[in-house]
Amino acid sequence: MNDTVHDTERPDQQAYMAAVDLGSNSFHMVIARVVDGDIQLLHREKQKVQLAEGLNEQLVLSEEAIERGLSVLAQFADTLKPFAPQSVRVIATYTLRRAKNAATFLRRARTVFPFPIEVISGQEEARFIYQGVAHFEHFSGRRLVIDIGGGSTEFAIGEGLQPLRLSSRNMGCVSYAMQHFAQGRISEKRFARAILQAEQELEPIVSSFKAAGWQQAVGTSGTVKTIRDIIIGLGLSNNALELTHLLALKDHLVAQENSYQLDLPGLTDDRKLLICSGLAILIAAFNLLQIDQLVYIDAALREGVLYEMSDRLQHLDIREHSVASMQRRYDVDMAQAERVRNTALQLFSQVRSVWQLNDEDAMLLGWAATLYEVGLHINSSGVQKHSAYILQNANLPGFNQEQQQLIATLVRFHRRKIRLDDMPVFSLYQLSQVVCLLVLLRLAVLLNQKRRDDLLPEFTANAAMQTLELNLGRDWLTQQSLLAADLAAEQKALKKIAFVLDCPELAASSTVLS
Amino acid sequence: MNDTVHDTERPDQQAYMAAVDLGSNSFHMVIARVVDGDIQLLHREKQKVQLAEGLNEQLVLSEEAIERGLSVLAQFADTLKPFAPQSVRVIATYTLRRAKNAATFLRRARTVFPFPIEVISGQEEARFIYQGVAHFEHFSGRRLVIDIGGGSTEFAIGEGLQPLRLSSRNMGCVSYAMQHFAQGRISEKRFARAILQAEQELEPIVSSFKAAGWQQAVGTSGTVKTIRDIIIGLGLSNNALELTHLLALKDHLVAQENSYQLDLPGLTDDRKLLICSGLAILIAAFNLLQIDQLVYIDAALREGVLYEMSDRLQHLDIREHSVASMQRRYDVDMAQAERVRNTALQLFSQVRSVWQLNDEDAMLLGWAATLYEVGLHINSSGVQKHSAYILQNANLPGFNQEQQQLIATLVRFHRRKIRLDDMPVFSLYQLSQVVCLLVLLRLAVLLNQKRRDDLLPEFTANAAMQTLELNLGRDWLTQQSLLAADLAAEQKALKKIAFVLDCPELAASSTVLS
Repeated sequence: MNDTVHDTERPDQQAYMAAVDLGSNSFHMVIARVVDGDIQLLHREKQKVQLAEGLNEQLVLSEEAIERGLSVLAQFADTLKPFAPQSVRVIATYTLRRAKNAATFLRRARTVFPFPIEVISGQEEARFIYQGVAHFEHFSGRRLVIDIGGGSTEFAIGEGLQPLRLSSRNMGCVSYAMQHFAQGRISEKRFARAILQAEQELEPIVSSFKAAGWQQAVGTSGTVKTIRDIIIGLGLSNNALELTHLLALKDHLVAQENSYQLDLPGLTDDRKLLICSGLAILIAAFNLLQIDQLVYIDAALREGVLYEMSDRLQHLDIREHSVASMQRRYDVDMAQAERVRNTALQLFSQVRSVWQLNDEDAMLLGWAATLYEVGLHINSSGVQKHSAYILQNANLPGFNQEQQQLIATLVRFHRRKIRLDDMPVFSLYQLSQVVCLLVLLRLAVLLNQKRRDDLLPEFTANAAMQTLELNLGRDWLTQQSLLAADLAAEQKALKKIAFVLDCPELAASSTVLS
Repeated sequence: MNDTVHDTERPDQQAYMAAVDLGSNSFHMVIARVVDGDIQLLHREKQKVQLAEGLNEQLVLSEEAIERGLSVLAQFADTLKPFAPQSVRVIATYTLRRAKNAATFLRRARTVFPFPIEVISGQEEARFIYQGVAHFEHFSGRRLVIDIGGGSTEFAIGEGLQPLRLSSRNMGCVSYAMQHFAQGRISEKRFARAILQAEQELEPIVSSFKAAGWQQAVGTSGTVKTIRDIIIGLGLSNNALELTHLLALKDHLVAQENSYQLDLPGLTDDRKLLICSGLAILIAAFNLLQIDQLVYIDAALREGVLYEMSDRLQHLDIREHSVASMQRRYDVDMAQAERVRNTALQLFSQVRSVWQLNDEDAMLLGWAATLYEVGLHINSSGVQKHSAYILQNANLPGFNQEQQQLIATLVRFHRRKIRLDDMPVFSLYQLSQVVCLLVLLRLAVLLNQKRRDDLLPEFTANAAMQTLELNLGRDWLTQQSLLAADLAAEQKALKKIAFVLDCPELAASSTVLS
């Protein structure tokens, strides 16, 4: 399907941006440009992939599904050829989040598609959807947004651009179709089971969402759009959806007995097998959240991604807010975090060109330095483990899963033994890059162990491959016998991962350790 | 060594209490009675066991060390024969905390020693030591307490009975003797290395301890006592210890070259091999914490345990404070915690006799119900994992390691799949007991999922072995189709661990699930 909003030449300027959304049902691409700070959509492309259909109960993605996905990515790559890397963001959701062999998909994708694919958490997915809606159409009041996807359904409540509740539930129109309406079979009982299961899935968030409340309920994406089109087509409503419309449609579907035979206004062939499951999920949401009316809005995740890209272009990075908010939440010693961050970034600036690190690496290192002590909130003993646990599991708006995982990994090994085998395999980062950032963080923490602003002398750092030479001044190090001992211990720790930390003054200053 | 403070008949009344401390160097037992709310020490016994000496680098405790420990426990068991279970507390510290085969020791101990052995965390160890000192001798102001043990050294700062900083460091006179003064060899260089290593071990807590500050520094236990006795015996000081005294003693020891040849006033044979390592640790503490003077006080962990036992007898359970403080720290929804706790304890009261549960079980269940949502602080998705992580790793004053682990385990499986294989093996609790408490917690959470005070009807619970019959009233359940579905799902989840949840009204009320 090629739904060109505005005919255009191939974009080749910085002002063009593209967002790609690897969904569980379809892959989408939107191209836009920023005009006077506003986003103008130029081009939309959608390809049905049905990735979720290829996910078995053991959460393994089938070879066929992988190939369907790769083939669409190759087509998108062609369209995106003239785009600079920073003008494209590619987001993957439910299926690649859950699939145990997602790494295989991502590795093979690199051969046909040159842009990094970011797998995001369910809460991030909900946040992008909310942003897409909030930017697309202003509403003064609280808004509930529901997005029924192929593998998961996202719920969000927010005011203006500010999301207040975000949740992603493990239920989608593809997975529920396979589970409850196999071979296109429709019955009252099948509907009852699907609705009940969706209600159980929703139950944990109901009290919190109802407590927040809303004045407008909005649905987005294909499933809600199709349901709305059919209901309007059948003359059941002419705009907003109500529970009675949904139940009438359900009765209509039950009467047909099989999805393959469906012939409804607005129902395309590729949606036939998904309409009952999508409707069941929507009815469950109406039931439990007691929704009166729901309107459809034609914007979702990919538009949210675009708006965030335009924010980043203006250096408004939501990740800064997330990090600051986490610092407050966990009562971080701000002065110490700042010291470690400054030292880490000073070291970084001296080694970045040799180690081929970029601005994004500097940001990630800075955030790791800012947050390395959040785990003190749990216990000072084993703080590196607790900080990493929190950073790995917290909701950090703006971070994709690998960025969050990278920060957690740096923090996990910011002191004590480094176990490369325990590090996750990243798709967006090389191990050598992770090690470089880790060395810088460890040194920054070590050098600031006394938590004093007036202690550190001017220092220089010279990088080579797997090597860092650190000069702290001999006179100074002689007076800091404990720090000298710590540096000697650090040399040993890094040697175990084949990294050379060279401190020329150390051998001279230390006698005890020889 | 049999150091009877006050000659007495064998105690056989409730008013007598005993505390046993299975330390890394010696096992100690103190017997006391409560007189007018005050504790009167009656009898002290000490047996050198040198458990830490039998701990190898892989943290496996040798058969010889285990046998030494069991033999002393058998002797203690004889003395403790007339004591009621609730009048005895047995605390194990560093070596049994670290040993990978601690479970073997604890299992074999049960055959010769009838009282439960509680392994405590390093922070708990520091807290008991502080309590021992604080109760033993009043001081109006802040006090630093240092206790050099066989495997670890505890540091505490507090005011009155309130500890403010607690830390346990991985350095002890037995482990450092093996590492730095093997075969009794003494040299300036060996001292320098031991001191430096102790300083590195201390470094992470220095800024926090110095920031808290103190007016009096106190040392406790055998190592400090021996050092003090020698220094007084040599005429270097007549009371408090200063760094100059410690350094003079060090010079004196270096001059002797070997520990076996030492002949010093106040140095018993069993301390000869431990004096250099203990002194090195103490010098490191003086250096880094900049201690001017240190006095010795003849009270420590076991006295702290006694005082807490007398508090519990008066129903002042510090664990209540710990739980309340954790609720606040993690912004727990108090109303919901109370609902779940009430339901859990209502269920408990109806099944306790059949399932042979006791008051302590009720308390543990109540605390688990109170804290099951602490993990929401990290993320609502996977809350059971986050809550369990926090409860497992937090510092919870008053709880021994297994109690804390039990609460964490209950919370870990308060919803979703129960994996018995992932549960720790407890030494103090039977698996059947854990399962009973878990079933009650799960039902209490399930029944309060709507977070409403006015929802639940009167219910009755009838227990049998591995079976619970729950009656909620048929009329009520028919109106709660979602809760009925949840109960049906719960039946399935419990069936997988061979537990029968019987809800007579359920089959009748539910049609969808049949």
